[in-house]
Amino acid sequence: MTTTTSSQRSVPARFHLDDLNLSQGKLARLHTLLYEHGPGNGTLLLLPLDQGMEHGPVDFFSNPPSKDPEFQCQLAVQGNYSGIALQIGLASKYLPSYAGRIPLVLKVNGRTTVPSSDDAFSPLTSSVEDAVRLGASAVGYTCYVGSPAQDRDLRQMNEVRRDCERFGMPLICWSYPRGSAIAQRGGQDSLYAIDYAARVAAEMGADVIKINIPRDHSPADASSPAPYDSLVEDRREMLARVIRSGGRSLVIFAGGSKLGDEALLGRIEDCMAAGGTGFIFGRNMWQRPMDQALAMTSRVHSILAGYGAGG
Amino acid sequence: MTTTTSSQRSVPARFHLDDLNLSQGKLARLHTLLYEHGPGNGTLLLLPLDQGMEHGPVDFFSNPPSKDPEFQCQLAVQGNYSGIALQIGLASKYLPSYAGRIPLVLKVNGRTTVPSSDDAFSPLTSSVEDAVRLGASAVGYTCYVGSPAQDRDLRQMNEVRRDCERFGMPLICWSYPRGSAIAQRGGQDSLYAIDYAARVAAEMGADVIKINIPRDHSPADASSPAPYDSLVEDRREMLARVIRSGGRSLVIFAGGSKLGDEALLGRIEDCMAAGGTGFIFGRNMWQRPMDQALAMTSRVHSILAGYGAGG
Amino acid sequence: MTTTTSSQRSVPARFHLDDLNLSQGKLARLHTLLYEHGPGNGTLLLLPLDQGMEHGPVDFFSNPPSKDPEFQCQLAVQGNYSGIALQIGLASKYLPSYAGRIPLVLKVNGRTTVPSSDDAFSPLTSSVEDAVRLGASAVGYTCYVGSPAQDRDLRQMNEVRRDCERFGMPLICWSYPRGSAIAQRGGQDSLYAIDYAARVAAEMGADVIKINIPRDHSPADASSPAPYDSLVEDRREMLARVIRSGGRSLVIFAGGSKLGDEALLGRIEDCMAAGGTGFIFGRNMWQRPMDQALAMTSRVHSILAGYGAGG
Amino acid sequence: MTTTTSSQRSVPARFHLDDLNLSQGKLARLHTLLYEHGPGNGTLLLLPLDQGMEHGPVDFFSNPPSKDPEFQCQLAVQGNYSGIALQIGLASKYLPSYAGRIPLVLKVNGRTTVPSSDDAFSPLTSSVEDAVRLGASAVGYTCYVGSPAQDRDLRQMNEVRRDCERFGMPLICWSYPRGSAIAQRGGQDSLYAIDYAARVAAEMGADVIKINIPRDHSPADASSPAPYDSLVEDRREMLARVIRSGGRSLVIFAGGSKLGDEALLGRIEDCMAAGGTGFIFGRNMWQRPMDQALAMTSRVHSILAGYGAGG
Amino acid sequence: MTTTTSSQRSVPARFHLDDLNLSQGKLARLHTLLYEHGPGNGTLLLLPLDQGMEHGPVDFFSNPPSKDPEFQCQLAVQGNYSGIALQIGLASKYLPSYAGRIPLVLKVNGRTTVPSSDDAFSPLTSSVEDAVRLGASAVGYTCYVGSPAQDRDLRQMNEVRRDCERFGMPLICWSYPRGSAIAQRGGQDSLYAIDYAARVAAEMGADVIKINIPRDHSPADASSPAPYDSLVEDRREMLARVIRSGGRSLVIFAGGSKLGDEALLGRIEDCMAAGGTGFIFGRNMWQRPMDQALAMTSRVHSILAGYGAGG
Repeated sequence: MTTTTSSQRSVPARFHLDDLNLSQGKLARLHTLLYEHGPGNGTLLLLPLDQGMEHGPVDFFSNPPSKDPEFQCQLAVQGNYSGIALQIGLASKYLPSYAGRIPLVLKVNGRTTVPSSDDAFSPLTSSVEDAVRLGASAVGYTCYVGSPAQDRDLRQMNEVRRDCERFGMPLICWSYPRGSAIAQRGGQDSLYAIDYAARVAAEMGADVIKINIPRDHSPADASSPAPYDSLVEDRREMLARVIRSGGRSLVIFAGGSKLGDEALLGRIEDCMAAGGTGFIFGRNMWQRPMDQALAMTSRVHSILAGYGAGG
Repeated sequence: MTTTTSSQRSVPARFHLDDLNLSQGKLARLHTLLYEHGPGNGTLLLLPLDQGMEHGPVDFFSNPPSKDPEFQCQLAVQGNYSGIALQIGLASKYLPSYAGRIPLVLKVNGRTTVPSSDDAFSPLTSSVEDAVRLGASAVGYTCYVGSPAQDRDLRQMNEVRRDCERFGMPLICWSYPRGSAIAQRGGQDSLYAIDYAARVAAEMGADVIKINIPRDHSPADASSPAPYDSLVEDRREMLARVIRSGGRSLVIFAGGSKLGDEALLGRIEDCMAAGGTGFIFGRNMWQRPMDQALAMTSRVHSILAGYGAGG
Repeated sequence: MTTTTSSQRSVPARFHLDDLNLSQGKLARLHTLLYEHGPGNGTLLLLPLDQGMEHGPVDFFSNPPSKDPEFQCQLAVQGNYSGIALQIGLASKYLPSYAGRIPLVLKVNGRTTVPSSDDAFSPLTSSVEDAVRLGASAVGYTCYVGSPAQDRDLRQMNEVRRDCERFGMPLICWSYPRGSAIAQRGGQDSLYAIDYAARVAAEMGADVIKINIPRDHSPADASSPAPYDSLVEDRREMLARVIRSGGRSLVIFAGGSKLGDEALLGRIEDCMAAGGTGFIFGRNMWQRPMDQALAMTSRVHSILAGYGAGG
Repeated sequence: MTTTTSSQRSVPARFHLDDLNLSQGKLARLHTLLYEHGPGNGTLLLLPLDQGMEHGPVDFFSNPPSKDPEFQCQLAVQGNYSGIALQIGLASKYLPSYAGRIPLVLKVNGRTTVPSSDDAFSPLTSSVEDAVRLGASAVGYTCYVGSPAQDRDLRQMNEVRRDCERFGMPLICWSYPRGSAIAQRGGQDSLYAIDYAARVAAEMGADVIKINIPRDHSPADASSPAPYDSLVEDRREMLARVIRSGGRSLVIFAGGSKLGDEALLGRIEDCMAAGGTGFIFGRNMWQRPMDQALAMTSRVHSILAGYGAGG
Repeated sequence: MTTTTSSQRSVPARFHLDDLNLSQGKLARLHTLLYEHGPGNGTLLLLPLDQGMEHGPVDFFSNPPSKDPEFQCQLAVQGNYSGIALQIGLASKYLPSYAGRIPLVLKVNGRTTVPSSDDAFSPLTSSVEDAVRLGASAVGYTCYVGSPAQDRDLRQMNEVRRDCERFGMPLICWSYPRGSAIAQRGGQDSLYAIDYAARVAAEMGADVIKINIPRDHSPADASSPAPYDSLVEDRREMLARVIRSGGRSLVIFAGGSKLGDEALLGRIEDCMAAGGTGFIFGRNMWQRPMDQALAMTSRVHSILAGYGAGG
């Protein structure tokens, strides 16, 4: 077993699966995601489809066919994604036809964004046992780091982690800074907030951490705690920083709302160069017609191909 | 197994039971509702009687005999309904005499509307295991989409869904937008709210979704999120939209408070033409004398007969 | 099995035990209360003693010996009551000497009235299993209909009902409108509130419903929902109305604070004539010396003797 | 089995253990406290040491050696107390050396008094099963009667009572009026409040009730409910009143903060003359040097010797 | 078994492991910490690394390599610490390579400090069973003494303590005064607050208590309860006082934010002279390069070597 001390270089190394001290079941299931589907070289490209619950059908207007989950299932298969992330309802009713062809990441909690996010919290909507039953390769759990509801959130995540350990199921943490207190300290996209979120997910036992790309330094950072209030780093430095905070948990990045293609591809290059393991892109992929979505997916694959970690 | 991509046409297809990827027990019980009782052609006509709890006895004044649950039991049998939806108390004390003659949909949560609906939530009033014991064909669960109490609601619905999976019991979700935040974004009858509610129910794993018919575009929609704020569609377009949001969950429509007969029949035609699976009509049916209720039921059956999906 | 349609006459029929679709255990235990003790003709006369907890020892000042639970035990036996309703502490320490001589109704929840009743809720103070262990013939559960705490109340009542089903234990619901919202809609003694409470108890699965006698129409009813705001009925009409709302659950009436004897007897006659099954009188009975309490009890027995439903 | 009707005389009789209808295990363990240790004549003299948790180390300043629990253990043994009341931490670490020499009353809930007492509540700090494991003779539970948190308190006490029944463990209830609503009705030391608290403990199933001595009638009683607002009784009348409210639960009195010796001895005489079973004195005993504490203990024993109830 | 009465001298004795009345499993595991690793003479030197969760990555800026948990693992091994305290995520992913070389103290609860600390509470993040599975030598639990959330905190600590008893796992309590009420009574570093916190941990059943060193007497103490408001003691007197409040629980001290080296060494000498068992130093150790951290660790070892309690 090789250990890698990230402090010895400026860019954190992507960990090999064998370095993560995972149980047999977690290793086997992560191997499916990292080496048997998608890029297959130890990087990840996941397709999420829980926006209908998190944001509502508003996200489907720009590409109406995307409202039918068959669209994303087809895109995941044809685009050779590492896996698709779904809530229990869609996983149960759409994935059977694709069993074995596209790995499932079962999202086990969720919420609507209708009520205030001041004390954001996502209750359980399914279980690790459901994920086992459906043959999933991982579960996804949203933790709202810094929310006044963290009491319930951390305790609930602890229960999910325990079940993941029991069943050998990898735990992917959607680690999102949220709530009124974060808003007062630089906001949810600040380097301070995302750096903290990455570390919390690692200490809580996430195997993979999904975070957002920190925004560039801005005047709003003045309300972040020192030294973040005056810390000016370029994107790759910030990305390397938050990836290091994730420790031996693999770090993948969310795309957020749709960007221009070149901007997106630039960020992908930055994330991988900084040591990221991959991406989970939803709206940036399926908010366009299938042929364009496949073409864009292909361009992402080309970048990821350059960052393999062996098998 | 046939999959149907709704995006390929303007009206969503009514799914055949075999397309829904349901477990053996759910298939058997839904078959009872869809093909062995009521219209018997794959459409649904359910009679609910939980208004005494949800609204109080006020709903019985316009037709005093309706206060005795025998009235609705007789109407369900003589009117050839697909099933009757009751809380545990009425189900236990009135349905034994009708066992085998009218399927039971056990409503497993409920509340009174006496306290404020700002943070609406319906606690469990019975269980899926009760439904099994009583020989029910489905359970009904009310989810108040967008309520500040969604934390408890989604978690509770998750537990009901899990038990439904365990026992092979179909889950019918009363998916109702409610609460202070919905009121500020166009209201509970807006297209935005109902479209969102349909999708949440689908992602949470409902097998059948009960929603209201969206109201026509109104100035109040200006407070809905874009593009709903300026979206003007006719009723069938709106109905097709919300049915599509329900994905592979069958969508049925509630009647709400009593309408004029021709208006009601027109809406029925609209709902079916737009791809709906059926209706759950209470006050529109039993708030009139038995003979009139049977006559109106007969007219609804005539329309449903034209929308069969085979057996 | 005979079913009785209450809508066919103006006074609801008192149901025979065989008409209620009860389980074997519930039938056996209710038979004890209805036909083996007390009037013994299918009517009920219960003696409650939980006022020391609900109101405090203030209720004992007008008849100091009543503070010793032996007083009520003696009154129940000598006065030939159908049963005595007690909290677990008194049931355990006083009833053993009377085992077999006076049936026990174990009150399984309770509270003090010291804190505000705006969000009234009675937590569990014992269990259905305790009732089984003590050889009780029924349990009593207080549900505060319309309270903002109804979330916890209905869920808790559901658990008690489930255990009652499991053990064949009859469930008597103290169905009391309470809380700030009821106060704003005509108050807890209004016809609106009591009519609603009776129905909720029936839908929740109560076997026997304890309610208060509605007050006469008053200007305060103007804040009740229509048509209660302008509904003027005499007492027997109101009583028949609320009894009908209870459906196939037996309805018994509470006495509330002490009345003049003739007024009380008049109300008893009204309740029975309107279809009531009996009474649960505490302060009206034991807030007087034993000989007077027995004499008054005897007068009540005389009335109940005229309303037998056979055995 | 003899039953005693307290209403037949002005001073309530001290109950004999055989009159309390207790289970075999409770009888055996209470026998240890009442007849095998301490006065040994059916009266109780308990030494509590949970003030370090309830009040903090402030209580130890006036007699610094009292901060070491060995002081109280020695006092309990040398002073021949009926038992010592401790939280789990002190019981586990200090009592093993005294096993068999001084009975343990395990206090199973507690709190600090740092936060506001407006909604006072003491969470569980150990369990009845812990008490069984440690060979305790009883458990102590603090119930804050009238607190807005009574929902949680009564439910929690119900669970402790259930476990006491299961294990045959006597339940001693620290029955303390507390919270904002009590403060507005005469205060926690008023006759109204203490009388109510004694009754609640009895109805909740306490075997022994620990209450405070009511204060003398004061102008503050004007805000108590009638007839307490104008009730003027001497101390023995008040003590007899609250003891009667405790019914067949044995009533013992707390000492509260330290009094002058003669005042304390006078109160002891009053409590016993009024029918009390004994005392639980902490600060009045151990806030003085060992020799003085033993001397004072001896004077208390002399009084208790005159009130034996046989063995 | 020897018992030591702390009241007999001015400096409390360090207890020998045999004096603590611990179960076999706790004795074995504490023996590992006290005599088989670290100083090995009955004193403790623990290295904590949960600051990334409690404070965020801000704590790693002054020594960037410290962000990689390998740094602390190496320091713990090379510096011969008694054990390392980690959350479940870091313990699972970093400690396997060091199994047997450095004992694990699994921190079983935690939180971020982003939301307000007015009602501070740390939810469970792992379990005692996790600690057993990972071969840990103790668990760490943070109790926020005096927080308005003490209801949940004490109950949760009770559950952890029960599991510790069940598995023979030593319980180390991070006993920290926190919350709005403490802030109003002198603050979390006041002698009043820390003295109270030590006692609460002892009464709750902690085997080892981690507290902060009380600050010197300050004007802010005026708002502490008497006699703390006017109590002026030198550091060693205060330390002896709080250690005595911990009774037979071993007391160790936290370092808090980084101090000058000589100041820190002086405090270490004070704590040990006053009867302390050891230290848990994080930032004071790993917020400097490895060679300096090892050098400082060596100086601490030199002091601890003078305070052995035998093996």
